[in-house]
Amino acid sequence: MSRYFARRLETLAPYTPGEQPKIDGLIKLNTNENPYEPCRAVRDAGFNENLKCYPDPECGVLVEAIQSYCQLPSGTVMVGNGSDELLGFAFMAYGGPDKKMIFPQISYGFYPVFAQLFQTDCRRIPLKNDLTIDPTDYKNVEGTIIIANPNAPTGIALSQLEMESIIQGNPDQMVIVDEAYVDFGGESCIPLIGKYDNLLVIQTFSKSRSLAGCRVGFAVSNKEVIGDLNRLKYSFNPYNLDRLAIEIATEAILDVEYFEQTRQKIIATRDWFSLEMTKRGFEVPRSKANFIFAKPPGMDGQSYFRQLRKRSILVRHFDQPTIEEYVRITIGSRQDMDKLLEATDDILDAAEKGEPYEDQ
Amino acid sequence: MSRYFARRLETLAPYTPGEQPKIDGLIKLNTNENPYEPCRAVRDAGFNENLKCYPDPECGVLVEAIQSYCQLPSGTVMVGNGSDELLGFAFMAYGGPDKKMIFPQISYGFYPVFAQLFQTDCRRIPLKNDLTIDPTDYKNVEGTIIIANPNAPTGIALSQLEMESIIQGNPDQMVIVDEAYVDFGGESCIPLIGKYDNLLVIQTFSKSRSLAGCRVGFAVSNKEVIGDLNRLKYSFNPYNLDRLAIEIATEAILDVEYFEQTRQKIIATRDWFSLEMTKRGFEVPRSKANFIFAKPPGMDGQSYFRQLRKRSILVRHFDQPTIEEYVRITIGSRQDMDKLLEATDDILDAAEKGEPYEDQ
Repeated sequence: MSRYFARRLETLAPYTPGEQPKIDGLIKLNTNENPYEPCRAVRDAGFNENLKCYPDPECGVLVEAIQSYCQLPSGTVMVGNGSDELLGFAFMAYGGPDKKMIFPQISYGFYPVFAQLFQTDCRRIPLKNDLTIDPTDYKNVEGTIIIANPNAPTGIALSQLEMESIIQGNPDQMVIVDEAYVDFGGESCIPLIGKYDNLLVIQTFSKSRSLAGCRVGFAVSNKEVIGDLNRLKYSFNPYNLDRLAIEIATEAILDVEYFEQTRQKIIATRDWFSLEMTKRGFEVPRSKANFIFAKPPGMDGQSYFRQLRKRSILVRHFDQPTIEEYVRITIGSRQDMDKLLEATDDILDAAEKGEPYEDQ
Repeated sequence: MSRYFARRLETLAPYTPGEQPKIDGLIKLNTNENPYEPCRAVRDAGFNENLKCYPDPECGVLVEAIQSYCQLPSGTVMVGNGSDELLGFAFMAYGGPDKKMIFPQISYGFYPVFAQLFQTDCRRIPLKNDLTIDPTDYKNVEGTIIIANPNAPTGIALSQLEMESIIQGNPDQMVIVDEAYVDFGGESCIPLIGKYDNLLVIQTFSKSRSLAGCRVGFAVSNKEVIGDLNRLKYSFNPYNLDRLAIEIATEAILDVEYFEQTRQKIIATRDWFSLEMTKRGFEVPRSKANFIFAKPPGMDGQSYFRQLRKRSILVRHFDQPTIEEYVRITIGSRQDMDKLLEATDDILDAAEKGEPYEDQ
């Protein structure tokens, strides 16, 4: 148990799943599995991964592959049913009625929801005018810190050095770094894991590994913190990853070449696309994510969103102070972005001619 | 919101995931998905279900298939990442510091863990001497009731009428019925859903649908209660089922014929096997599950467990008062059970001859 773990959960005794030993020729009648295969349609679809049996609750194959990829020792990684589940466990472990959560005013919209779910008060620190996070605002604070780096929905990243100043500046507080988008040009805090006992990094397979449909995230920290989170997992949902997700995510982490190739393509598309948008008068903070945040010229964010939608292009608009002037645009394929630029030219052109919006 | 929902969560405002509209030709740049397919090994393995995109958070196809199978109206079913996740949500919604949870002393070992996780006091009601649940013990109680029916690890079921007496006898308390094993001969409470507003039934695909490795469970209740649970899901893990699990579980619920065939085979094997064990002097309460609970003659549960294990047969032993004399044996294939009977004859024979156990 880490010294940051919630007092109210200190005595929590997790559930013990039935043994899943790997012994040749074992007759396994201990976990009430069905002896028959799943139905024909499932078998015909090629899902032959012994789906009638429980998955390995430790997800050992996948956890080891991630540890090896990150060059980390055993016991420092755990996987979740998407990074949201791991964030949920982190809020449960390091939040609660007797602990404050501290995060940027503008960030992943799920943080205040998790906080409310676990009856945790929040302190939300405003961004600077240029939408950046000021690391000095996070020094010596009273509560658990969570920072998305790169931040969402701005795409702006803090350097590893800036993040380290926050981790170092709060030795008695847990610092959670949500690195969902880090593979698109940000600097990960994973290399700092061995250096600080108050650092928890959470990443996902949804973005840089093209597996949003597969629901796999992972947490990296020291053994005590990973122990805390596993204790919650074994008290809530021990078999949180299915057999196919474990298999697929393992393949994805092993194929480093493909990962490098696709993330570089997205980075290149993003940088080109950001420039094109800037040329058209958009304000675009420098993104290190697989999306950009863009403020259209002479038009509010909502109108631009609607005009794009009428042209069958869906982006995201947040109806919130500070950022309502912007839209968040995911970096798709080069063709998708070309079509978006074309539509944008069309929208700006119409606006300049003073044509009325034909809103729904 | 149902009138049973935890006060502390009344104002909870869930996260809103980005839209997932189904519009032909839509350029979807709103949820930061990757435009490139997953790596080659994943594609080569035939996992072509658009894994780069998020799943439908409502799991609409699967929910509708279950509603249609159960002949229930829209809004009365939700799915979870295994029934454990749904039980977790149920404990969160209907437990908590201001609510007691009431369940049998001997039952699914996860209930006290969930209770502790959500700071809920428990009242554990002893079984009768024959290991059955006395429904009159559960009338007019002060707290949320949860009953596994058939019960685990005994396999003994209450009738629908007995369950109804509990539901009816506690109009101001939520009654959660965990029907993980109901398809092996128990009577489901699903037909009572329309009649009572305090009934929540939870089932799983792990047992009767041969999908323990796929992690899918479902909850059935009225719209308000399903709304409560969905509110927690959208505040904890909105995309809780991956695309493959949704697809596979949908196939499984549609193939009624195969389901009937395999569950009848298991029931037949169980009834034959129970009789064989009884012939050998075991005490075997009448099971309606895909396992039996068996007390060996002239030997304690632990020793029998160990002797089986030495012969590469794994069953489950619970080191707990009341049930330590028993082992729980999953009903496997006919061959598996034949081997177990053979091993048992061998063990009983050795015991009769007074041969010392060669324990590890």
